[in-house]
Amino acid sequence: MPDKTAPDASRRSTRSRSAIYAAALALVAEIGYPRTTIEGIAARAGVGKQTIYRWWPSKADVLLEAFLDLSAQAAGQAGQAPYEIPDTGDLAADLRAVLRAAVDRLLDPAFEAPARALAAEGLLNEQVGREFVARLLEPRLRLCARRLRAAQDSGAVRADVDPRIALELFVSPLAQRWLQRTGPLTHAYADTLVGYALYGIAPR
Amino acid sequence: MPDKTAPDASRRSTRSRSAIYAAALALVAEIGYPRTTIEGIAARAGVGKQTIYRWWPSKADVLLEAFLDLSAQAAGQAGQAPYEIPDTGDLAADLRAVLRAAVDRLLDPAFEAPARALAAEGLLNEQVGREFVARLLEPRLRLCARRLRAAQDSGAVRADVDPRIALELFVSPLAQRWLQRTGPLTHAYADTLVGYALYGIAPR
Repeated sequence: MPDKTAPDASRRSTRSRSAIYAAALALVAEIGYPRTTIEGIAARAGVGKQTIYRWWPSKADVLLEAFLDLSAQAAGQAGQAPYEIPDTGDLAADLRAVLRAAVDRLLDPAFEAPARALAAEGLLNEQVGREFVARLLEPRLRLCARRLRAAQDSGAVRADVDPRIALELFVSPLAQRWLQRTGPLTHAYADTLVGYALYGIAPR
Repeated sequence: MPDKTAPDASRRSTRSRSAIYAAALALVAEIGYPRTTIEGIAARAGVGKQTIYRWWPSKADVLLEAFLDLSAQAAGQAGQAPYEIPDTGDLAADLRAVLRAAVDRLLDPAFEAPARALAAEGLLNEQVGREFVARLLEPRLRLCARRLRAAQDSGAVRADVDPRIALELFVSPLAQRWLQRTGPLTHAYADTLVGYALYGIAPR
């Protein structure tokens, strides 16, 4: 075989992957996750279904990769490193900014359908759930914990607080409102959570 | 028709319902929610599938009723009104007791499979999600909000705090750890959440 087939194959492969990701995201948004199949994704992407099975064992894996790719592209377009958390020295303001951005993202229809489908699949399928958490959620939580540790160094958070648990006071309420539709997601709500978590609900 | 057929039919109907609930809970625990079908539930319960369709439009509805029945029975056996929240006058101790009981319940295998299946179905199917939240989650959250309002009257919680948002600081982290397996659920974790929520993570 001539040498140049390798780069051609690689370019073809990148094009196929993009088409597969786009097809998976479109189908989940249009007909829902339960009715989306590997066959349907293959047909829409214009590839054979064996091409998909060669790279991914299940439709959940295709959708997870597609969603990670979408997230990375969105961050790139916004000119950000993914999941950046500001450190202006004002912890309350920084956390409000992070939480308000999370609200905007959770309400964005392009993210809503695939994120909800992956979260639902992850509840029943423990392996998918662990991968979803490890690849999508944990990297953000680690940055959040790092910001809280910096706040401990500057005295804005008590030294005896566990940052990994503390971050759940404002991250988890947002996640649950989104996942289970237990209440509206707004910037005002995000701000309130940050205030309660920092200063507590008991009188000072 | 003789008069006594009505009570007979009613007893038969109660027996059928119990058998259907037991079959639905057993199948979800044994083979998982996605593979559980109305036909399978009917076969296991020893009833015709039309009997099930007469009472419930979908397997999600059967499972929701079965789970509500299981919860009511468990509360009855423990001699409790469902979802009781103590008011000993010590808010921190009362919230720790409620949260520790929630941890025990979330780790109970009899509740785990159906509760997780309903939560997952509720993520994708908005109608099931709203019913799950309205009938299972909201009644507990309302009692929790009522306990926080009593604490506002006694001065243990600031008057300007919104109880419905405040309760999410300790309820939602527990829910998310359970739903997404983001960390271990223990009594120590429950106690830590209550402490952070009451007194905040900033120095006092």
